[in-house]
Amino acid sequence: MNIHIRFVNTSLRDNYSYLFLKGIIPKGLSRFADGHLGFEKVEELFVSENRLETAKVEAASLKQLEISTLDLQWVQVLAEGWAYPLKGFMREDQFLQSLHFNTLSGENDASQGIRNHSLPVVLPVSTEDKTLLENCSAISLRYEGRPVAILRRPEFYVHRKEERVARTFGCIHRDHPYVKMIYESGDWLVGGELEVLGRITWDDGLDEYRLTPNELRAKFKEMGADAIFAFQLRNPIHNGHALLMQDTRRRLLEERGFRKPVLLLHPLGGWTKDDDVPLPVRIQQHLAVLQEGVLPEDSTLLAIFPSPMHYAGPTEVQWHAKARMNAGANFYIVGRDPAGLPHPDKSVGGDLYEPTHGARVLRMAPGLSHLEIVPFRVAAYDRTVKKMAFFEPSRAVDFDFISGTKMRGIV
Amino acid sequence: MNIHIRFVNTSLRDNYSYLFLKGIIPKGLSRFADGHLGFEKVEELFVSENRLETAKVEAASLKQLEISTLDLQWVQVLAEGWAYPLKGFMREDQFLQSLHFNTLSGENDASQGIRNHSLPVVLPVSTEDKTLLENCSAISLRYEGRPVAILRRPEFYVHRKEERVARTFGCIHRDHPYVKMIYESGDWLVGGELEVLGRITWDDGLDEYRLTPNELRAKFKEMGADAIFAFQLRNPIHNGHALLMQDTRRRLLEERGFRKPVLLLHPLGGWTKDDDVPLPVRIQQHLAVLQEGVLPEDSTLLAIFPSPMHYAGPTEVQWHAKARMNAGANFYIVGRDPAGLPHPDKSVGGDLYEPTHGARVLRMAPGLSHLEIVPFRVAAYDRTVKKMAFFEPSRAVDFDFISGTKMRGIV
Repeated sequence: MNIHIRFVNTSLRDNYSYLFLKGIIPKGLSRFADGHLGFEKVEELFVSENRLETAKVEAASLKQLEISTLDLQWVQVLAEGWAYPLKGFMREDQFLQSLHFNTLSGENDASQGIRNHSLPVVLPVSTEDKTLLENCSAISLRYEGRPVAILRRPEFYVHRKEERVARTFGCIHRDHPYVKMIYESGDWLVGGELEVLGRITWDDGLDEYRLTPNELRAKFKEMGADAIFAFQLRNPIHNGHALLMQDTRRRLLEERGFRKPVLLLHPLGGWTKDDDVPLPVRIQQHLAVLQEGVLPEDSTLLAIFPSPMHYAGPTEVQWHAKARMNAGANFYIVGRDPAGLPHPDKSVGGDLYEPTHGARVLRMAPGLSHLEIVPFRVAAYDRTVKKMAFFEPSRAVDFDFISGTKMRGIV
Repeated sequence: MNIHIRFVNTSLRDNYSYLFLKGIIPKGLSRFADGHLGFEKVEELFVSENRLETAKVEAASLKQLEISTLDLQWVQVLAEGWAYPLKGFMREDQFLQSLHFNTLSGENDASQGIRNHSLPVVLPVSTEDKTLLENCSAISLRYEGRPVAILRRPEFYVHRKEERVARTFGCIHRDHPYVKMIYESGDWLVGGELEVLGRITWDDGLDEYRLTPNELRAKFKEMGADAIFAFQLRNPIHNGHALLMQDTRRRLLEERGFRKPVLLLHPLGGWTKDDDVPLPVRIQQHLAVLQEGVLPEDSTLLAIFPSPMHYAGPTEVQWHAKARMNAGANFYIVGRDPAGLPHPDKSVGGDLYEPTHGARVLRMAPGLSHLEIVPFRVAAYDRTVKKMAFFEPSRAVDFDFISGTKMRGIV
């Protein structure tokens, strides 16, 4: 009986592979043919309910490290499984892999293969804290005096800031907002596995939108989704964005044969630079767009991605995509100049990253082959139909290229 | 009959895999079980003899780009197959893969898998040259007025120097000697496939040592080698180096069961910084070491690696290893702080790279799994036996840690 079942499964998978190779099944669907991905859960780093009291007692007995709000955002990212299979703050070997190859190798199991991981997820500590903590077998991480996690088998290593920044951002200018924070942080990094003492919340009225990857996967299943396309935002939705999301849905339905593609509308909720639009305002704007019916409410899920921004262009866009893959997405809409910003050196000017590099690097990135990249298409105001439409070079004269500000004025 | 032969081959390979997995066959040997590697040839970019005249006539008819000595060294590297499967100067997609992932994906054939390639191999051109050449379908590359290669389907793209330098060197200081050359080079890069019009020689009396990867492979076969261990040098051989090479040979013979391990003694012959020891002096020193019998002449092959140095530490050591893998090496001895140098910013001081990172990054690097990394071991003067020996921490008092200068004085 077992053998029969296995045979059937194998055939099924083979048929899927065959149909996929022939282009009969869209590439995105291959995730759902693969039991390990699809609606399977990612591993979270929360202490299980029955061990929670013991863990809290242990945490109270350990030496403490007070962490920053930024650090806590990374604890949340790790705890909820966005960075799966990472089990805690990076040890030095993981840091080096991430810096040099944008990957993590499968831990203890070569069959897991290569996982994409482009941004170092690290915990900086001061020399003073390192001296106090370096001989501990475990450390209690505290935020505003409350224990939030136990970090096991801490590994302290030098925070080589210049090298980290150069390899991550392709630029070491200290006026870059995340680079500045790195230079101001501790001179050591500490890696180690995390056991997180309960859910991390921010009590800002938006916690209901902070769904974990596993909660998102459950929602998608509930909604009957057969394809998930994710859109990363750190700005209000422009009409060009809306057009792209609408068009992606149309193509998934009409051209790719999905019956229920669901949009994960996923604004970034962690740290952003001062002049970005604050999260509560963005959420209000996204809700207004949904209420206006620009995006259908029954097949759109609005949720907050708890990660901080890095503004690291082609390096960061991989993180944005990988995290959504962990939440069950199989299509990722990549923007123009993703995670980009103006060059921090005003005398250099222009964009810090070449605007097309993000999508190109993402498409070639190792460990993301299960995620299909939906390229950005340029939208402009089409005077013939008096609305935003994808730019068609063959009738360029019909289009107005207008700034976001002017576009919002017109619409 | 065909089926039978294929069955036998498959079994053989399976047995090898099995024995390899069980640790019965040393990892290095797996290369020789794999027909594609081992003594197979790499693809060179030289125009075949029968097409040479036609190609020269064509080159004479094309628009010309005068290249520098450094560029010509890279043409040689490419032509001889050190950078295989790279077929010419990098196009922008290859440049991006190399910068972000230190790899090249298998071209037109996914089964080739991922190849390691950590250093951008690129050809800078000025805006003036780009304007002259950008609509050509092929360009003639000239060195000192003589045509050396045809570059096909040129792709011009912006030479993003800061980003290239930051991601390659982990540092953008303009007093770094290779970084300085990059900043002084053209503002554009041109990629494209190369057809090289004959062997590149330097007429310095050392051309006989400049063996191509395929010539090295043929030599190894002639010598009856069953293991090749490579040692990259850009300095004179110290006694610590000699001890490491001797000990590697002993272990390959005694512990790993090889019968004829051959050392590829492989000094770098391309551009080096002004205060490095010049190539002719180094070759004389290496010859003297061989004549003194420090390294057995019948199982050592002295040859020149034509690549320029980058001084890019953990990024460059992968290039040094990959190129030797292309020449048939299956063991690579990695030094302490490979391709390192002092931080170019004197006010920072210390080494630019953490000295252990090179070996660690090399061991984790994608696309080098067929190459076994032989780690550097620290040698010191052992007073109990009055000679250089590997340092043993348990009897640290017996050892003198002495500078290279003092060491040479003693020995």
